[in-house]
Amino acid sequence: MQLGMVGLGRMGANMVKRLVAHGHECTVFDMSPKVVEELAKEKGVTGASSMADLVSKLAKPRAIWLMIPAGVVEKAIAEIAPHLESGDILIDGGNSYYIDDIRRAKELAPKGIQYVDVGTSGGVWGLERGYCMMIGGPKAAVEHLDPIFKTIAPGIGDIPHTPGRENVVSTAEQGYLHCGDSGGGHFVKMVHNGIEYGMMAAYAEGLGVLKSANIGKHTHEIDAETTPLRDPEHYQYDFNLPDIAEVWRRGSVIASWLLDLTSSALAGDPELAKFGGRVSDSGEGRWTIKAGIDEGVPTPVLTASLYERFTSRGEADFSNKILSALRYEFGGHLEKPAAK
Amino acid sequence: MQLGMVGLGRMGANMVKRLVAHGHECTVFDMSPKVVEELAKEKGVTGASSMADLVSKLAKPRAIWLMIPAGVVEKAIAEIAPHLESGDILIDGGNSYYIDDIRRAKELAPKGIQYVDVGTSGGVWGLERGYCMMIGGPKAAVEHLDPIFKTIAPGIGDIPHTPGRENVVSTAEQGYLHCGDSGGGHFVKMVHNGIEYGMMAAYAEGLGVLKSANIGKHTHEIDAETTPLRDPEHYQYDFNLPDIAEVWRRGSVIASWLLDLTSSALAGDPELAKFGGRVSDSGEGRWTIKAGIDEGVPTPVLTASLYERFTSRGEADFSNKILSALRYEFGGHLEKPAAK
Amino acid sequence: MQLGMVGLGRMGANMVKRLVAHGHECTVFDMSPKVVEELAKEKGVTGASSMADLVSKLAKPRAIWLMIPAGVVEKAIAEIAPHLESGDILIDGGNSYYIDDIRRAKELAPKGIQYVDVGTSGGVWGLERGYCMMIGGPKAAVEHLDPIFKTIAPGIGDIPHTPGRENVVSTAEQGYLHCGDSGGGHFVKMVHNGIEYGMMAAYAEGLGVLKSANIGKHTHEIDAETTPLRDPEHYQYDFNLPDIAEVWRRGSVIASWLLDLTSSALAGDPELAKFGGRVSDSGEGRWTIKAGIDEGVPTPVLTASLYERFTSRGEADFSNKILSALRYEFGGHLEKPAAK
Amino acid sequence: MQLGMVGLGRMGANMVKRLVAHGHECTVFDMSPKVVEELAKEKGVTGASSMADLVSKLAKPRAIWLMIPAGVVEKAIAEIAPHLESGDILIDGGNSYYIDDIRRAKELAPKGIQYVDVGTSGGVWGLERGYCMMIGGPKAAVEHLDPIFKTIAPGIGDIPHTPGRENVVSTAEQGYLHCGDSGGGHFVKMVHNGIEYGMMAAYAEGLGVLKSANIGKHTHEIDAETTPLRDPEHYQYDFNLPDIAEVWRRGSVIASWLLDLTSSALAGDPELAKFGGRVSDSGEGRWTIKAGIDEGVPTPVLTASLYERFTSRGEADFSNKILSALRYEFGGHLEKPAAK
Repeated sequence: MQLGMVGLGRMGANMVKRLVAHGHECTVFDMSPKVVEELAKEKGVTGASSMADLVSKLAKPRAIWLMIPAGVVEKAIAEIAPHLESGDILIDGGNSYYIDDIRRAKELAPKGIQYVDVGTSGGVWGLERGYCMMIGGPKAAVEHLDPIFKTIAPGIGDIPHTPGRENVVSTAEQGYLHCGDSGGGHFVKMVHNGIEYGMMAAYAEGLGVLKSANIGKHTHEIDAETTPLRDPEHYQYDFNLPDIAEVWRRGSVIASWLLDLTSSALAGDPELAKFGGRVSDSGEGRWTIKAGIDEGVPTPVLTASLYERFTSRGEADFSNKILSALRYEFGGHLEKPAAK
Repeated sequence: MQLGMVGLGRMGANMVKRLVAHGHECTVFDMSPKVVEELAKEKGVTGASSMADLVSKLAKPRAIWLMIPAGVVEKAIAEIAPHLESGDILIDGGNSYYIDDIRRAKELAPKGIQYVDVGTSGGVWGLERGYCMMIGGPKAAVEHLDPIFKTIAPGIGDIPHTPGRENVVSTAEQGYLHCGDSGGGHFVKMVHNGIEYGMMAAYAEGLGVLKSANIGKHTHEIDAETTPLRDPEHYQYDFNLPDIAEVWRRGSVIASWLLDLTSSALAGDPELAKFGGRVSDSGEGRWTIKAGIDEGVPTPVLTASLYERFTSRGEADFSNKILSALRYEFGGHLEKPAAK
Repeated sequence: MQLGMVGLGRMGANMVKRLVAHGHECTVFDMSPKVVEELAKEKGVTGASSMADLVSKLAKPRAIWLMIPAGVVEKAIAEIAPHLESGDILIDGGNSYYIDDIRRAKELAPKGIQYVDVGTSGGVWGLERGYCMMIGGPKAAVEHLDPIFKTIAPGIGDIPHTPGRENVVSTAEQGYLHCGDSGGGHFVKMVHNGIEYGMMAAYAEGLGVLKSANIGKHTHEIDAETTPLRDPEHYQYDFNLPDIAEVWRRGSVIASWLLDLTSSALAGDPELAKFGGRVSDSGEGRWTIKAGIDEGVPTPVLTASLYERFTSRGEADFSNKILSALRYEFGGHLEKPAAK
Repeated sequence: MQLGMVGLGRMGANMVKRLVAHGHECTVFDMSPKVVEELAKEKGVTGASSMADLVSKLAKPRAIWLMIPAGVVEKAIAEIAPHLESGDILIDGGNSYYIDDIRRAKELAPKGIQYVDVGTSGGVWGLERGYCMMIGGPKAAVEHLDPIFKTIAPGIGDIPHTPGRENVVSTAEQGYLHCGDSGGGHFVKMVHNGIEYGMMAAYAEGLGVLKSANIGKHTHEIDAETTPLRDPEHYQYDFNLPDIAEVWRRGSVIASWLLDLTSSALAGDPELAKFGGRVSDSGEGRWTIKAGIDEGVPTPVLTASLYERFTSRGEADFSNKILSALRYEFGGHLEKPAAK
């Protein structure tokens, strides 16, 4: 079927390629005319020079997919909506806050525009692996888009069927799912990312413990403010982290795609020397915690993983100064300089 | 080659089956003669009536694998060691604390007995998938046992090679690895389990947030001690958790073997009604945290996942009573009963 | 000066008593006519039969203080505002979300009504100790109310001057402070309560560790799923918690008013048997965490203390079931029943 | 009575001054002869030139108090014990691990030397305020030392009696307490310090949230990896932290001695510019967490406060690099440089 794609970054462009490779037709637009021109060389792809142009090149009822940063979706909808007509479908495939989806769906409904929110996971690997999609919005619109979702999704692939689901009828096994009403897709994607933060942190912390397992080889001074390592002979291991990440990939309980990537990252660079350790966070992790708080559901692991990222960027510095100041106040303790 | 196996529980028995299926010979012992008798029916398996009998039935240098609860390893070594001779290899494949390995290796060394510690992951699935093994101890002994490890391990299987490791020579890709000196195998396994706790908690918390995403449908009373949910319309989702766990298995960033199991667990029982939520912990999680503390390496996610387990068993009850008592003291607040 | 007080619960009534005892005049209203009647017996107190009646009995420019549950403030303002005139001051002394203050101040401004938000700490003890007040809103209105704040506040009392503040001119030393524009009072009070949660949890956890310091006296079974306590001789202490809380009150680093209350709570009931350990939370703790997340500032301690409360009320139960289900899936582990 | 004091740092010297001011006699020794000479000028103080000299100058049964860094206590005991006789009392007033106390008491018992462990809180302020003491060891020895403890302790002072303790007979109200058998004093002190870490972190985090409450005044760029602050108008406050810390000292629920010190620290230096935020930890915090883990008692708040300190010293750096590496692997995300 026909799809309009707005935003031709890594993910948008790869989706278009995946769609036309399976016989769909795509009309595409991006802020950069050069990017449009380049992609329009692919068979089945038509370039557009503006949002209005894109809309005019699509047959009704139109289906238009926005694959753009969450911060500019609002503006893009304001720009494109006036050109749309009743029956058209507008899809936000980015990382919008589900609360915005609820509002947008309500705002567009009087015009007869159906708003569909799609949380998309797969990163730069989606062209090859397919994208896992979590979908929210009106049932009829979601069903209308089924051929698109089926193509973008990974499908069953080599992945074994889940025991106990033999009689379950669901697109879930294909890698896409209508999760619920408006916002439901991004809600599930939000939580997905929250879990992702937690899993990443679990590996990172564990590898951190392995990395310092040779601490007993270093000497420590004795003073009133630090305690010597009691049993240095218990920390004499120089572990080969690349090999350890690799061995866990096979047969262990913690095998995962993130572990595959960890092994790959360590393979070339065991010290990860090219990274500084300033870790970004992009919204979904924060929103997951806020949702848990609203629900009264505790998420200590997911929250800890978010805070590690904040702290990695120096956001705890003032709090830490308070601690040092207090230690000075009650104990006369001076800060110790970093070890050389 | 020949191997003695002590302990024929799920894991020990499955390892023996996997070994004899690949042409190795196993002499086996268990506290239960019936279990020995049953397994001895398999081709290549010889039963033994005692540890001494097991030792006597093996050719020198012997290799004996203990696959028993961590709490009884000490006693088993005390019983079997007197029968062993210089050059024999004693393997602890259970979940021992690596600190015990260091001590045991030292204690057995004067007699010429080589002690090898093996952390084994794979659970009840190992017969089919193979077991991931993390190995510590003297290099010569570990190399001598290579045929055994190669057979028990999963091998490469269908799992793709890791980019960047094309020129790396290591058994890691086969699913087993000599990690370091005595204790090194169990150290790595300990951290593996710590990571496992963290990953499990990440999924559990995320699914908990999804489960309560319909909280806006319930009414809340207004009083001075609770705050009403500000935006009930944001929490109106009745998510299908089994389908969501399933859809994440394909193409998402959080795909993993633990997620496969989560999907399977939810498939039959979306409410998990047969579980009460009292979660055990078995040592490695605790030891991982202690190692991190000794090293000065923070592990907030792994620690939070351990504490969730403690709390699930009521271990925070007294602390919580303190909180209620304090709220009563300063605010006159009475505890609110559980909602019906 | 003259003040109207709406809401004669513990805090409102005590404030009125404190005000009239210092020569101010109060006109009071409460949903319960009986409560109004009772308080109106005090010298300097005039009862009112409705909000409108209360307004009519005050001289312009009026100052009216709402001391009611956060959940009903919105409704109360809607009811009283139509009776107010330009120049009147409306004070919300309860536990409103500061975001509501910002909005309300904007909504009331066109009518010339000045909205002042006051976060009030002191609990049931305020009549005797005075109330610590954190104030937000327009400077002129706050200054106009100074005689009221000065009377309700504790004053310097016996508390020593802070070294280094000899030349600081501020009402802070009196126990009240104009913190900033609208919402600023409740923002600071919100964070105050977040800190309160963290401090309470610190005491509660520490006392929990002391309480179980005799765990080495109990026997533990040995199985594959639990690890025995390695050194039971290190946990043989039956500590007297009431005495310990008391001794810390004098000269220790952790002396505080909350510790005073802890000692008092334990004095009568060392086991705190009358509490079940279901701990409420009332909004400010949650909002503090959300503010930290918006700011990107990590608050792991405050967050952990909030989550302890959620968990104490069973809100982690589903997540825990996931953990148990996963342990069953990969290891065949059954849940262990609670010890009798 | 007579006391030997070994170690004349801040705390040891101040204790001696407090003791002789109340009529006790002290014989003192320190590694620095100059320090001994200086203190020996005080009335009631006799200097000693060595441990042996100190022992020889005391009448039997001797009472000798070690007030030295935990890391050198072992060596000091080895040096002084040979000079002691049956009936003598050796007191460790430093920050020893209670597990060492248990062992030392056992080692010294055959010689008839009574070992008493005293956890001492009060920091540099003890000379003026007195020291809170938590005491472990044999009852007879502790009772023998009662005049010493009573003098060093703060006494009741101005601090009000705890309601409900009217009929309790205990030294706790004087600021010292025999907590239990050997190690019991340092166990309680250990937990005291764990609580101290948690309380300090509670204040530090809360003030951190207040410090960044003006974040809405800064602009944020929009890109795919960060989410803009949704409501910048909610974060427009430039709070005066010194005044806020001060106002909380009077009448608020979170008043404490640590808050007094916080106010003092902020008074001179609202930005705490002289501190870098590298926060030390000195053993007790770590041991508290380990004790909680052994007991199976969760301590999420205390643990989070410990980990904040680890992280402040860069100990999470490798884990953070793993996170950045993973984000690069799955999403092609590059690290963002620190804002200027």
